[in-house]
Order: sequence, then structure tokens, then C-alpha cells
Amino acid sequence: MRILLAGLLATAALPALAQPAARPDPDQIIAALRTDALSDEHAWRITEDLTTEVGQRLAGTEAEARARAWAVRRLTALGFANVRIDDFAMPVWQRGREAAELLGPYPQKLVVAALGNSASTPAGGVTGEIVAFTDVEALRAAPAEKVRGKIVYIGHDMPRTQDGSGYGIFGAPRRQGPTVASQKGAAAIVVRSIGTDREHRNPHTGTMSYADGATPIPAGALSNPDADQLERILARGQRPTLRLTLESRVAQGRSGNVIAEVPGRDQNAAPVLVSCHLDSWDLGTGALDDAAGCGIVTAAAKRVMEAGMPARPIRIVWFGAEEVGLFGGLDYRAKYGKQPHHAIMESDFGADRVWKVDSRLGKEREAEAKRLQLMLQPLGIVPGSLTETEGSDIGPMVADGLPGASLAQDGTRYFDIHHTPDDTLAMVDKKQMQQNVAAWTTAVAVLAGTVEARPAARRRGR
Amino acid sequence: MRILLAGLLATAALPALAQPAARPDPDQIIAALRTDALSDEHAWRITEDLTTEVGQRLAGTEAEARARAWAVRRLTALGFANVRIDDFAMPVWQRGREAAELLGPYPQKLVVAALGNSASTPAGGVTGEIVAFTDVEALRAAPAEKVRGKIVYIGHDMPRTQDGSGYGIFGAPRRQGPTVASQKGAAAIVVRSIGTDREHRNPHTGTMSYADGATPIPAGALSNPDADQLERILARGQRPTLRLTLESRVAQGRSGNVIAEVPGRDQNAAPVLVSCHLDSWDLGTGALDDAAGCGIVTAAAKRVMEAGMPARPIRIVWFGAEEVGLFGGLDYRAKYGKQPHHAIMESDFGADRVWKVDSRLGKEREAEAKRLQLMLQPLGIVPGSLTETEGSDIGPMVADGLPGASLAQDGTRYFDIHHTPDDTLAMVDKKQMQQNVAAWTTAVAVLAGTVEARPAARRRGR
Repeated sequence: MRILLAGLLATAALPALAQPAARPDPDQIIAALRTDALSDEHAWRITEDLTTEVGQRLAGTEAEARARAWAVRRLTALGFANVRIDDFAMPVWQRGREAAELLGPYPQKLVVAALGNSASTPAGGVTGEIVAFTDVEALRAAPAEKVRGKIVYIGHDMPRTQDGSGYGIFGAPRRQGPTVASQKGAAAIVVRSIGTDREHRNPHTGTMSYADGATPIPAGALSNPDADQLERILARGQRPTLRLTLESRVAQGRSGNVIAEVPGRDQNAAPVLVSCHLDSWDLGTGALDDAAGCGIVTAAAKRVMEAGMPARPIRIVWFGAEEVGLFGGLDYRAKYGKQPHHAIMESDFGADRVWKVDSRLGKEREAEAKRLQLMLQPLGIVPGSLTETEGSDIGPMVADGLPGASLAQDGTRYFDIHHTPDDTLAMVDKKQMQQNVAAWTTAVAVLAGTVEARPAARRRGR
Repeated sequence: MRILLAGLLATAALPALAQPAARPDPDQIIAALRTDALSDEHAWRITEDLTTEVGQRLAGTEAEARARAWAVRRLTALGFANVRIDDFAMPVWQRGREAAELLGPYPQKLVVAALGNSASTPAGGVTGEIVAFTDVEALRAAPAEKVRGKIVYIGHDMPRTQDGSGYGIFGAPRRQGPTVASQKGAAAIVVRSIGTDREHRNPHTGTMSYADGATPIPAGALSNPDADQLERILARGQRPTLRLTLESRVAQGRSGNVIAEVPGRDQNAAPVLVSCHLDSWDLGTGALDDAAGCGIVTAAAKRVMEAGMPARPIRIVWFGAEEVGLFGGLDYRAKYGKQPHHAIMESDFGADRVWKVDSRLGKEREAEAKRLQLMLQPLGIVPGSLTETEGSDIGPMVADGLPGASLAQDGTRYFDIHHTPDDTLAMVDKKQMQQNVAAWTTAVAVLAGTVEARPAARRRGR
């Protein structure tokens, strides 16, 4: 790859190498940046170092604070400008002891994890007969006397999809199940993990909240093989009794967004926002979710910065406390959401390859949107919508109407791993991550405006 | 497959369907049995039902006793003769609370499981600096003062192999590591799991024992991703401190072998022994190790029994307490090991396809051994040794010189799953399991002697 790049550079004339008088073709600059990024090491190093030197970094905890300090050190060392923390207060939920044990008719332990915001069971857990439902609607339709005092189980059959769209509908047992079960007087609820790996006993945690008026009850997720086991027992006409222990506690804490910038030639121009989230769930080390995203967007900004100076500033945000309720995104929106942004973007879907680009830059910027599509095509990226974009932390600002673009990653295996103990560096495919960096470098270079060599005066001034 | 079988039966004339006067060709009978077995359901049902209705069944525990009662019911229901339990006393090790936490320099939890026979840590665990070795020889070569009071870590780089032969040499950290660490005064030891899955956080337990004179110390296995994490931290020049909690207790208990028989036309002839083990490790449900083996050998015996009556008796043994020291095999050997056996065989390597047949039937039975090879070839099974055979429970009797055969299974993914929480029904590939049943049915039919229709007198007498 390096050899290929050398060839490209010879024709593309990257600004840093160019003669001062030459005015290189912007598309050739981007082509060279794109090719070079395919052998990127920054993204991998950020992902490896953050997941190794900090590990899990649950929102609002001391571990997330260590991660913020780590992030400031790293972003500063990479040469970004104006590295800072925007902090904020939030409630912090933390898991304690967890166990699920069938007492009969076939005594055995099942693998369980509490869902975020689950109520804590008392010491000794809660014990109840299992009453099972195929989906939330079936639970909703059930008479309360069928559910009262029992432990609700809800299954589903979430498929693997490239765009990850199954997560919406098949996530209902986790998101709405606890509220509905509580409203019908259930003692507790366990759901089939919202995930697509049917072979490994990795429970998928994730956040949920109780609708107004619903009494919080203990809520957990069984690993898929354990859910299958429970369903096999139910299919034998048995009425199993479960003892469920899900201890947890809640306190007030602080989180924060870590922000850094690449200056633009026009420092007053609306910035391009590239983002990810720094917090992770507590079971794994948050490599795919979302150290990789931070690695990818930061590597892209770094590569554009090294090539020269873009027309507009690039703002990097590593959001805090995404997993537990988008606290970081909402804090940023409250502080900066009314200011103009040239485009807002987020990487929070693992590190597998980008396969499609969507954007919503507005009718008057259609040429820019099409150029973005065109420049991404050599990476095998399909042009998608010109009127839709998305994101999690940036989701509320997308809903507000800010312009943005999204680089859709292949989510086929994402929900095998999502929110499980298995979300570690071992799951990151470096080659695919490098394709992400190439896509992001390309997108940032297109959106931030033609990269040019720094003015000679400024270069002397450094 | 059923349709194909009907065609085969029309020409092969299975005894049960044949005219009494017809004398079917033995090879054609075996060919029909072999084909029919490729759609076997018995093996799957035994595996599913045992792992669902009992689950884990650690040697010597109440769960293993429930499994024996289950086995007696199932073997009786399948129509086998003389179903019985041979029971015996044994020491029973059981795990308690487990945790591994790096206190510094990068505080985080690691996934650990105690090895069988590990000493228990005191309440609160043991805390020590990690001292790491690449293999047991490096630990052996280290001066005691480098190890004393510390927690030893030993790595390895076990590869996947078709024949599973890596388990011997790469299992040394688990088998010898604890003794050597203890002899040098270590406070405890953790090894890289003896397994080949590098992506999932499934720790591999397994038994070990302390050599005479070595003081038992706590001994655990880290999952492979956690071992990689620890090695990354060590590679950064850090000296991590680990707090290790591995609680366990030992008591006296009882286990037993479950035995059943298919009568032969000559009831005094030496039997063909087909075996598996009923106990499992406690982390998974022991589907591959070894419910599947019990399903496969029992299905084969059942299919031969249904086709008519073999020349020799077939003895089915579901050994107890294999995992923790071959107690069942040694008990059988003490009681019956001096009696003649026509062949001893065991299935204890998962449910992936049989790829090779080895045997050691003796020079004078070379024709029988070659016929065995020939009859297995249509299943894509390679002829192997004529002078070597193997097994775990039957290993001591193989060493004694009893004749035997082994159907070597594909072990490529076996050590991904072996002794982990992931050893559940979800890992069993039914299609490959059916090929195993076909291979075993073929082998049993060859070794137990030509299947014939039951004598008319006997048939009336039933």
C-alpha cells in the first residue's frame, strides 16, 4: 500500500510535498489522502490504547473520568488545538451481583446481565414462576392476573442485517418490556438478549427506562443460548421457577465531552463536527462501541490536518455518557446546538467497512453532496440518500435540522457483540477499520473544504 | 435421504423386512444402515434432552446423580437390556465465587475461571504482582526469588488442528504450571485458557493436580481476550497487580457408570464396548463434551439393535466422573478390565465429522480392521493406523492392550469451546453429528458381527 501511495503522491502532489507555486488539483489531493489512509495506524492505536489502558468506562464513573483524562492527553499529543472537557452532572447506575437460577423443574444456572436502570433486587433475589411471551404486544394483550407476581420472559428473533435496522423493532422487549411488565404487576422481567449471536453465552446489556408512573422492577437479559434453553424447557410444557438476583445502585456523578479542533483557514466558518462516544458499557472494554469510532474520526481529522489546512475548522467531539441516555449529545446541543455547523457526523457502529453514504446538506448544497458520493465510490461505497442522515449522540441535532452526513458501516456482525463482555479489541478487524479511516478522511476533506498548504507566514509562526 | 434409503432397502433387504428364507449380503446390510443413519434423530434427541433437562452435571454432584437417573430412564426407554449403575466413591471439587481484578496500573476486571482442584483463596482473595512466563519451561528456569509471593501468569499459543493434537503440549501451563509455581513459592497462578478461540471471553476450565509435596495454590484460567489484554499491559513495561478470588470446596461424594446392553446371538462372546462420559464441566451444559458422544454411540447401538441381532453383545457405557480424573474408566477397568473385549471404543471429542479411523485389533484380525476401513470410506473417512487406538476413559485399558478402534473427529473448532460456558447445544452441528452416527453404526455393525434377523423362535418369544 505504501508503494502504491508513493506512486500516487508523485502525480497527486500532496501539499506538504508540493512546490509552493503549484496549485494541486483538489480531487487528486483527496485521492492521495484516501489511499494513504488505507494504511492508517492512528485509529488502531487509539482503539488499542484506550481499551487497554482504561478498559471499560461506564458513564459517570471514575473509569470514565480516567478515560477523559486519557483522551485529553492523547488528543493533545496528536497536535489538535483547543483540547478541553465540557463536563456535566448525571445520575449513575452501576451493576452489582447478578445471577439467574432455575430452581425447577430442571435446576440450573442461566447467564444473565442487568439492563441499565434496572431496579435492584433485594438480598437473596426475587423468585417467581416464569410467564413467557413471544413479543411485547403479546405481553400487552395478556390479562394482568396472568402476570402478577411472576417473572416475565420476552423473546424475539432478531436477524442479522447489513444496515442494523433490526435493532429498532427487535429491541422492543428491552425498551418497552420492563414498563409493560411492571404495569401488569410482574415481580421482574428477563428478556432474550437484543443480539444476533446465537452461539455464545454473552448477555447483551443496554439501557431502558420506565415510563412515567411505572414502578421500576428488576430487568435483565439472558444470553441467547440461555434464552434458547429456557424456551426448550417451556416447550416441554414445564412451568419453570426462576430465582433472579440483579443488584445495582444509583448515585449522582459527572460525565463530560472531550472536544478538540483542527483550525481552518477561515476560523469563523461553521465547523465540520466529527464525533464518537468515549463511554462504554461495563461488561466489555468498548472496543467496537465506541473506541473504534473515536479512533476512526480522530485519525481522519489528524490526516487532513497533516496534509495542510482545511477551509473550515474541524471539531472533534468524544461524547460522554452516550450509552445511558445521550447525555453528552444533549449537553453539546444545549451549549452549541444553535450555532451553525457545516455538517455533523458520528461514528458509532463498530469498525466494519463503510458500505453506503447518506447525507442531508440541503438542496442548495447538492453539488457538494454529490461530490462526497463520488469521492467515496473508489472505496466501494454506495451512494445513498441526499435527504436523510442519522446518528445517536447527534440524533437530537439531526432532528433539529442541522446538516449532516452518515457513513453507514456494515452491521452484519455488530449485534453479535454489541453491549456484551465480548466487545473487546479482539473483535476489531484492522483492515476494515482502515477502510473506515479512508472513508472518513475523504468525507472530512470534502466537507471541510479544500486542504491547502498552510500560508507561509503561519508556517513560520508555529 | 429417506427416499434414497427406501431404494437401498429394496435391494439391500434389511433383515426386519426380508423374507425369512433370504440371506442378505452383510455389506449391503451395513450400507443400508450407514445411509439410514445419516438422518438419525436419536443422537440429537439424547443430546438436546440431557443438556436441557439436566444441564451441567459436574462429577460427584447431585446434578450428576440426576443425570444418571435420567440416563437409566432413557436407556431403558430405548429398549436396551440390563440397564444398571455401577457406582463408586470419589472426592468432589466444586467452584465458588470467582473474580480477577487488576488493581493497577490500569484498573479493570478480567474474566477468570478456577481450574479443577484449585486451592481456595481466603475471603478477599489473594493479591500479588503478576510475573509472566511464555511457557512452563521458562517458569521452571526462573529463580525462586523472582516468583515467591507473586502471582504467576503463563501464556502459550495453541493453534487449531484437525486432530486436536495441540492439546497435549499446549496444555502444559494448566497441567504442570500450578505445581511448578507452587514449588517456587508463588501465591497463585493464572494461565492463558487452554483453548483456541481468541475472540470470546470464555475461560476454559479443566482439571489439574499437584505433584507430591507441592502445596496446592489457587489456580485459574483467563479467557484468551483477557490474556491478550494482560499481555498488552505487560508489553507496555507495566508491572500489574492482580487481586484473585477463586473460592472452592472439596467433599467426598459418589459417581457411577451407567451401563446398558444389546444382546448378541452368542451372549458369551466378548462384547464390543461403545462409550462416552456422562459428567460434564460445570460452566456449560456439556453438549459437545460429552452429551454428543453419548448420543452418537447410543444411537449407533440402537440402530444396530433395531436392524436385528448382532453376533456379539454390544455394551454401552456412559462413564461417570471423566473430567476430573477418569474415575469412571478406572472403576470399569478394575471391575471388567481383565475380561475379554472384542473391541473398546469411545466418543469424546464433540460432534464434528469423523475424518479418520484408527484401530488396533491385532495382526490376526487384519482382515476385520481393513473391512472396517473399507466400510467407512463412503462417509469420506480416511483409513489410519492399524496398530494404534486411543480414548480418555478407555485410555488405561488401551494401555493394558485391549483391542480397540477410534473414529477420529474433526477437532478444528473443538478447543474453541472445550470446557467453557459456551459448550451448549447451540454448538452442536446436527448434520455432522449424523455423519458420526453413520460412522459409529457402521463400525459397530462391522465389529459386533453380521446383523441377522432374530431367530423366529426368539421373535415369537418376545
